[in-house]
Amino acid sequence: MKKIEHIGIAVKNLETSNSLFHKLLGVPSYKTELVESEGVKTAFYKIGEHKIELLEATTLDSPIAKFIEKRGEGIHHIAFEVDNLEAEIKRLKKEGFEIINENPKEGADNKRVVFLHPKSTQGVLVELCQEIILKE
Amino acid sequence: MKKIEHIGIAVKNLETSNSLFHKLLGVPSYKTELVESEGVKTAFYKIGEHKIELLEATTLDSPIAKFIEKRGEGIHHIAFEVDNLEAEIKRLKKEGFEIINENPKEGADNKRVVFLHPKSTQGVLVELCQEIILKE
Repeated sequence: MKKIEHIGIAVKNLETSNSLFHKLLGVPSYKTELVESEGVKTAFYKIGEHKIELLEATTLDSPIAKFIEKRGEGIHHIAFEVDNLEAEIKRLKKEGFEIINENPKEGADNKRVVFLHPKSTQGVLVELCQEIILKE
Repeated sequence: MKKIEHIGIAVKNLETSNSLFHKLLGVPSYKTELVESEGVKTAFYKIGEHKIELLEATTLDSPIAKFIEKRGEGIHHIAFEVDNLEAEIKRLKKEGFEIINENPKEGADNKRVVFLHPKSTQGVLVELCQEIILKE
């Protein structure tokens, strides 16, 4: 694990939350992005070297919709940046962690991502992400 | 807000969790600390420039015991470092945020800390912290 890439926060309404988090953090969101495969609309904030990602569900069966239904709005996941996603998946499986999607999927912000099951990480939803290097 | 200082994770048993997070993060905890005023025992991990704090309740009425009772183990709070705690409290109150303890208290890791009420931050427990500068 290289660093914490971002912290994901599940919100009901991105517009309302953007206004609130702008006030809270003192800076506006620097980008919003629709991740259709995940059924989410996201907004990113930068605080020093760190990112906060707000996530609003765009479909009823989106993981974010389910999370809010169960637990309400709040902190949803921690994302760690790794250099080699496949090597890290292999290492963590050997250590007994459960990977939700072994085939990395395309996440927001130009990343390949996998999630660890919170059952195996004491309730913490952990995302591993690796930057997609675009070839010319 | 200067940067994200750490992410706090509520756990039932620090010993079990230390073993798990050591495997997950690939590094051992670099310190543990008892914060009697808060009824918690904490362990800190460093990932790049970031810290993760595991928190175990040491008393039944500790905020961590109550959190786990309600929501189970998991991510508990985000802590932001600020340069001037009093100025930031004033700014956030003016913006309509609710401060849980207006008089900063002494937290773990040599910090003065205040918490914002999750009611006013869409379910996210936010800690603001400022390093205590020790005078000779």
